[in-house]
Amino acid sequence: MEELIKKAEILIEALPYIRKFCGSTFVIKYGGAVQKEEKLKDAFAQDVVLLEYIGINIIIVHGGGIRVSEIMKKMGKIPKFVHGQRVTDEETIDIVEMVLGGLVNKEIVTLINNHGGAAVGLTGKDGSLIMAKKKVLKTPLIKEIDIGLVGEVDKVNPDVLLSLQQDGFIPVIAPIGVGPAGETLNINADYVASAIASSLEAEKLLLLTDVEGVVGEDRKIISTLNISQIKKLKEKGIIKDGMLPKVDSCVKALEAGVRKTHIVDGRIPHCLLLEIFTEKGVGTEILKV
Amino acid sequence: MEELIKKAEILIEALPYIRKFCGSTFVIKYGGAVQKEEKLKDAFAQDVVLLEYIGINIIIVHGGGIRVSEIMKKMGKIPKFVHGQRVTDEETIDIVEMVLGGLVNKEIVTLINNHGGAAVGLTGKDGSLIMAKKKVLKTPLIKEIDIGLVGEVDKVNPDVLLSLQQDGFIPVIAPIGVGPAGETLNINADYVASAIASSLEAEKLLLLTDVEGVVGEDRKIISTLNISQIKKLKEKGIIKDGMLPKVDSCVKALEAGVRKTHIVDGRIPHCLLLEIFTEKGVGTEILKV
Amino acid sequence: MEELIKKAEILIEALPYIRKFCGSTFVIKYGGAVQKEEKLKDAFAQDVVLLEYIGINIIIVHGGGIRVSEIMKKMGKIPKFVHGQRVTDEETIDIVEMVLGGLVNKEIVTLINNHGGAAVGLTGKDGSLIMAKKKVLKTPLIKEIDIGLVGEVDKVNPDVLLSLQQDGFIPVIAPIGVGPAGETLNINADYVASAIASSLEAEKLLLLTDVEGVVGEDRKIISTLNISQIKKLKEKGIIKDGMLPKVDSCVKALEAGVRKTHIVDGRIPHCLLLEIFTEKGVGTEILKV
Amino acid sequence: MEELIKKAEILIEALPYIRKFCGSTFVIKYGGAVQKEEKLKDAFAQDVVLLEYIGINIIIVHGGGIRVSEIMKKMGKIPKFVHGQRVTDEETIDIVEMVLGGLVNKEIVTLINNHGGAAVGLTGKDGSLIMAKKKVLKTPLIKEIDIGLVGEVDKVNPDVLLSLQQDGFIPVIAPIGVGPAGETLNINADYVASAIASSLEAEKLLLLTDVEGVVGEDRKIISTLNISQIKKLKEKGIIKDGMLPKVDSCVKALEAGVRKTHIVDGRIPHCLLLEIFTEKGVGTEILKV
Amino acid sequence: MEELIKKAEILIEALPYIRKFCGSTFVIKYGGAVQKEEKLKDAFAQDVVLLEYIGINIIIVHGGGIRVSEIMKKMGKIPKFVHGQRVTDEETIDIVEMVLGGLVNKEIVTLINNHGGAAVGLTGKDGSLIMAKKKVLKTPLIKEIDIGLVGEVDKVNPDVLLSLQQDGFIPVIAPIGVGPAGETLNINADYVASAIASSLEAEKLLLLTDVEGVVGEDRKIISTLNISQIKKLKEKGIIKDGMLPKVDSCVKALEAGVRKTHIVDGRIPHCLLLEIFTEKGVGTEILKV
Amino acid sequence: MEELIKKAEILIEALPYIRKFCGSTFVIKYGGAVQKEEKLKDAFAQDVVLLEYIGINIIIVHGGGIRVSEIMKKMGKIPKFVHGQRVTDEETIDIVEMVLGGLVNKEIVTLINNHGGAAVGLTGKDGSLIMAKKKVLKTPLIKEIDIGLVGEVDKVNPDVLLSLQQDGFIPVIAPIGVGPAGETLNINADYVASAIASSLEAEKLLLLTDVEGVVGEDRKIISTLNISQIKKLKEKGIIKDGMLPKVDSCVKALEAGVRKTHIVDGRIPHCLLLEIFTEKGVGTEILKV
Repeated sequence: MEELIKKAEILIEALPYIRKFCGSTFVIKYGGAVQKEEKLKDAFAQDVVLLEYIGINIIIVHGGGIRVSEIMKKMGKIPKFVHGQRVTDEETIDIVEMVLGGLVNKEIVTLINNHGGAAVGLTGKDGSLIMAKKKVLKTPLIKEIDIGLVGEVDKVNPDVLLSLQQDGFIPVIAPIGVGPAGETLNINADYVASAIASSLEAEKLLLLTDVEGVVGEDRKIISTLNISQIKKLKEKGIIKDGMLPKVDSCVKALEAGVRKTHIVDGRIPHCLLLEIFTEKGVGTEILKV
Repeated sequence: MEELIKKAEILIEALPYIRKFCGSTFVIKYGGAVQKEEKLKDAFAQDVVLLEYIGINIIIVHGGGIRVSEIMKKMGKIPKFVHGQRVTDEETIDIVEMVLGGLVNKEIVTLINNHGGAAVGLTGKDGSLIMAKKKVLKTPLIKEIDIGLVGEVDKVNPDVLLSLQQDGFIPVIAPIGVGPAGETLNINADYVASAIASSLEAEKLLLLTDVEGVVGEDRKIISTLNISQIKKLKEKGIIKDGMLPKVDSCVKALEAGVRKTHIVDGRIPHCLLLEIFTEKGVGTEILKV
Repeated sequence: MEELIKKAEILIEALPYIRKFCGSTFVIKYGGAVQKEEKLKDAFAQDVVLLEYIGINIIIVHGGGIRVSEIMKKMGKIPKFVHGQRVTDEETIDIVEMVLGGLVNKEIVTLINNHGGAAVGLTGKDGSLIMAKKKVLKTPLIKEIDIGLVGEVDKVNPDVLLSLQQDGFIPVIAPIGVGPAGETLNINADYVASAIASSLEAEKLLLLTDVEGVVGEDRKIISTLNISQIKKLKEKGIIKDGMLPKVDSCVKALEAGVRKTHIVDGRIPHCLLLEIFTEKGVGTEILKV
Repeated sequence: MEELIKKAEILIEALPYIRKFCGSTFVIKYGGAVQKEEKLKDAFAQDVVLLEYIGINIIIVHGGGIRVSEIMKKMGKIPKFVHGQRVTDEETIDIVEMVLGGLVNKEIVTLINNHGGAAVGLTGKDGSLIMAKKKVLKTPLIKEIDIGLVGEVDKVNPDVLLSLQQDGFIPVIAPIGVGPAGETLNINADYVASAIASSLEAEKLLLLTDVEGVVGEDRKIISTLNISQIKKLKEKGIIKDGMLPKVDSCVKALEAGVRKTHIVDGRIPHCLLLEIFTEKGVGTEILKV
Repeated sequence: MEELIKKAEILIEALPYIRKFCGSTFVIKYGGAVQKEEKLKDAFAQDVVLLEYIGINIIIVHGGGIRVSEIMKKMGKIPKFVHGQRVTDEETIDIVEMVLGGLVNKEIVTLINNHGGAAVGLTGKDGSLIMAKKKVLKTPLIKEIDIGLVGEVDKVNPDVLLSLQQDGFIPVIAPIGVGPAGETLNINADYVASAIASSLEAEKLLLLTDVEGVVGEDRKIISTLNISQIKKLKEKGIIKDGMLPKVDSCVKALEAGVRKTHIVDGRIPHCLLLEIFTEKGVGTEILKV
Repeated sequence: MEELIKKAEILIEALPYIRKFCGSTFVIKYGGAVQKEEKLKDAFAQDVVLLEYIGINIIIVHGGGIRVSEIMKKMGKIPKFVHGQRVTDEETIDIVEMVLGGLVNKEIVTLINNHGGAAVGLTGKDGSLIMAKKKVLKTPLIKEIDIGLVGEVDKVNPDVLLSLQQDGFIPVIAPIGVGPAGETLNINADYVASAIASSLEAEKLLLLTDVEGVVGEDRKIISTLNISQIKKLKEKGIIKDGMLPKVDSCVKALEAGVRKTHIVDGRIPHCLLLEIFTEKGVGTEILKV
């Protein structure tokens, strides 16, 4: 019986957080690196469904680059990257679209539906959700590099998201945009999540990654950062490489009206729920000021 | 961190129950005997507010006979009871109405509001909620006893409950009915809770009492009973005295379409929440078949 | 037949007033002094129900100090007053809450329901309707007097009123507020009616009293006054004592956006309806300018 | 003051009737014979607007044969009648449509609007309200008489009435139908009122005429009749001539679900309002049984 | 088959126009001069119904002066005109109201209904749609001429239009206004159409006339004009006579927020539909700038 | 100008069909064989968008087997078929899901969006739209053949379709179902279209194929067939092979309440629109009786 009462008390502890977030929107970037272990995936789906039940509108943006490279190899193509970006020719973009929009997207949809949710998968083409333009990669050394059909978000049309949310569906979005001529463009999922969160002025943007958070000068995880601190850490070169698009996504979203952003360690089971549970959370929280 | 993950898992355990009961109505009889300890009262209010937040419509019917007797004594009147029923003259009914409708009712309202809910107190007079008629007490020995202004429910007009529920308010009801001529009638709170639950075809009727549940022939608590088993235990005299109106209230509610009824040990903190948490629950569950 | 036609003409006379007030809100302070005679009470209830039927939203705030004092005496307590305010200790506030919220409130509810209305009784605790703070009584002689649990309105949350009005219920409010720590506070009913009217930007605030209206220098009733005239009459000491909270309530309401306020002689049968019928009305009308 | 209180009491007398009819529909045949005196017309308009304000949906069907004959004479045509029915050739139907739909209809619309209502005039062509077919007049002597473009109601499409009612408009209908080929047909206004009332299952059908009511064998007005009594009075030849279409309209409406029908003396000012005021009313009430 | 495919392509051509105008309002002045030929009338009704089906809200204002003069002559009255305006005495206004409101209006209603629409006829009296005042005719020579009951629009109350539109009805309006004392006033239909279009901030005002359009200095039809060009052509005396009220109506509407106005050659079958079909249209388009 | 009038008349010809189908639902199977030519694809998208604009709810189910086989070959797998059904192992189902759900689906979505529609792509996994079970292939010779992850529709959950339709989106569905354990199942697109049409009781099911229609004994196209005629033609072996699933889909849909079904020659441009235009249509119409 004592065991049970303790359980009840844990539920009660969640009450002020439920009250706080009821009716708000969370956009979650669900990175490919954390979609591996069965147990982690189940915990993720359970968290999403529970959050939805207690009145939080969840939107998921997923990655899946590893799976794209696997299929490319099966089809005899060698994946190439420049400055962390996939060089994307016509054949490659078809594979990206197939793998992300057809395979990975539906896996996540089914994962959530099997746990009692009602997910619906989309790419940026559906309902013209993500209007994009070709990205021009500039580096200090060489002026411009053509990396092919890689895009950046130009405009988000959130109508289809609102239509689905209104009827209780959970949108799951593959990071594919549609160009001015209807062409397919491959976009970084962090940026897509940031743009979606911005267009809805979401309460939270959560980036689930395979690192513990943003590491400071002392090599320790920093639990809270603001935009000006980010700027300094970037200048000092402490924030670099793969962490750059993540912190940039957070900063952009904050500037567009998102309330809080989080870089979360997705390898911890129920890491999403811990955002409801604790002030501190798991990873680095990035605020405007 | 492990501590946190454990907590998250406990929340996840609650998910199937949240899913099951979302949108349904629970009518709770909150007995006077369990409204004493501060800690228990807080736990009760927390449970009510949490259940409301996860989408369950809560309606509370309260008792408070002990408080009535206290005030009566202060006013120089000696409480009298016949077969467990308060003999209620004109002066007494005024005290009953004042104490239950004015004092106890508003204490519970404030208790819930202080924990973040939005409770609204009512008696059966408000919105003509409980139309009642004078109760005639019959016993095997003496044919009829006049116990004064004691009533039984004639008809429930649930409009005011629906109006309040629709806007997220939690109705808290004092067990006072209004007679055909507008007279005040004192009614057993168990019966009122049963009639309210019946009129709304509630999912659950929960009677919070100061006993562990229904005790069987072997002096042990029975965890599940159905209507025909109740009948036999009554015939054998094993269910008797104060337990009689409770089981009768459950049986009536079940016959009117309430899905499940429960006689719950209100002395256990968070006993309401444990109904969400466990198949077994705390006390005796009474089903139709 | 002529008799009948005359009756019809009287109904037709009311038409321009019905047209004018259809859809607007009237807040009525129903003072304890005018809740006595059976015939007057019936006429009051008939008026309220008729006004509701022709499309006016009625909200009633009642007093009942005389009844409180009666019950106090029965319980062996002697009512004390300082500057017209009841000194309210812990025991007294319980009696105030019981008598006003439990007894008087439900009597008015039943009175209206018996005449075909659908009244619902509330105190300031229900739906956290009246948030209050302790009142500090200051006089020119002695700096501060502690009169105990007497409050003044801090904030009105009209949600529960709007919820009930929307479904055609008539709210009947006992003048009890809830303090920051959930404590019960006794508030002057005139002030409560004024605050409720202000929060809803009511069309009219009507204070039903047992005087003919505001008396001027010539000892005659003044039929119309504005805020600056009130100020002068107060300075001259012509408006004084029990009339002070009434005119102050009117002035406050007018400043908060209420269109017209009235101090009405509640001893005249159907005095409310005469507000529909005549330009002049019964008593003193107080306007902004 | 006593005068005023008396007035208030008369308003209160109306309350149970207001309660009874609130939300119901009254269809009123407003006969040409009672559209003459200025004072009577004003009283009629006042009644209509008051009834609308207290929540009764009013629909007016008017006649106007006298005006048609006047204009015909001005245009050099001699009105002809067979068995009380206007012989209607091509030229005549144009005049009927012009006078009823263009002149009389708009006079009534303006009359009501000038008294504060919001009337909208229609003929049976608007929104295809009254689908009609050519009437074949049969008499015992000569088998069939062709009286030209005279019609009978075939089908009522009440959509346009419901659309206008929903926004608080009072439909005023000229008794003109549209035939299968779009041709204009002149219809008896009593029958149109009956058909409209039937299609809406109105609470009341009221025929305003220039007689006191149905006269019995003893030459006195009968205040209440039922269908079987009507039948007998027709067989005995006591109900005859111009009264026949009126009682037939009532009987048809009752059989189609209208609750009560009335043949009212329209020469009495406020005769409509007296239907609210008195059990007896002015004229003859015809019930189903 | 090729024939069919060609037909399909023509439908497809209309798609961008359907998309553009879906949900917008077109006010059409349907002049008496173009209501003559059977075939033209059918084409007009077909166009109106098709436009309504593809989601355009149509409102028709009609003229009919020729018909008025005909009936006047039948009734022995000689029509008189001053500066193109009908001198309208008491008898004449009755004829105007009868003919326009009773005859012409219902003909157009029936025409549209026979082609599958749901038209409802109104005059400016219905729902107090067109509040008007007496027009004072001023000329350079004689200061003021009294032309009797001729009016100009004072205020449009579009409520009845919105009520009917919402339920899919097509309002057909006779150009008759109601004066301050309820008097009937004869108004130029072009001005009525302009005022209606202005009150609804319509997308288009289309005046269907029996000329090809506005003729320029070179005696050729001008396909597009703006307000300042109109001004110059008026000063030069090139726009004159019957064209003046038309261009003035367009200018007024444009200044009140109507998007585009058109003077269309109503003698061309399906001239309305050609507005959907072609950039150029048939006649003269008048824009703000 | 004559050219234009002719165009207008063609639009008018479409009016009765627009009227007939406004508000109804058409389910269109868009076969892979007809998704080839650019011009045909544009015509298809134009038709879909036009139908949507005139008020018809369009749902598209597409095939794409040829594309699946192409990609399989690129990945070094050889497509195998048994009795016209693809033998589908674990690797193959992934390719099917990727190609149909990720590539072909999004191509059609973009095609429609580029023509002004608002399409949203789904597979049967989204919103648990198509619950399926493994198909067991039985032949007269060998009892059962395991063709792997090929399914048949078990249950359609149309909620996601209704949610999207309500906001004007056009659902585009890839024929992939989800099995009881969440597994992916490849389903014949004709059967999926039939099941979707049945679940919505659609007005029409249209199967766009690369044949002219159902061929009769005389080798000519039959324009109309009913269920019993189909049965006979199947028995005689005249309907066989690839036409079998098509006619079976039609029969099933008709039995489930779909009003009309059509096997349409998708190689004719605007073949969909010709369904609006002509009684006869292009291909074979299959009715219940």
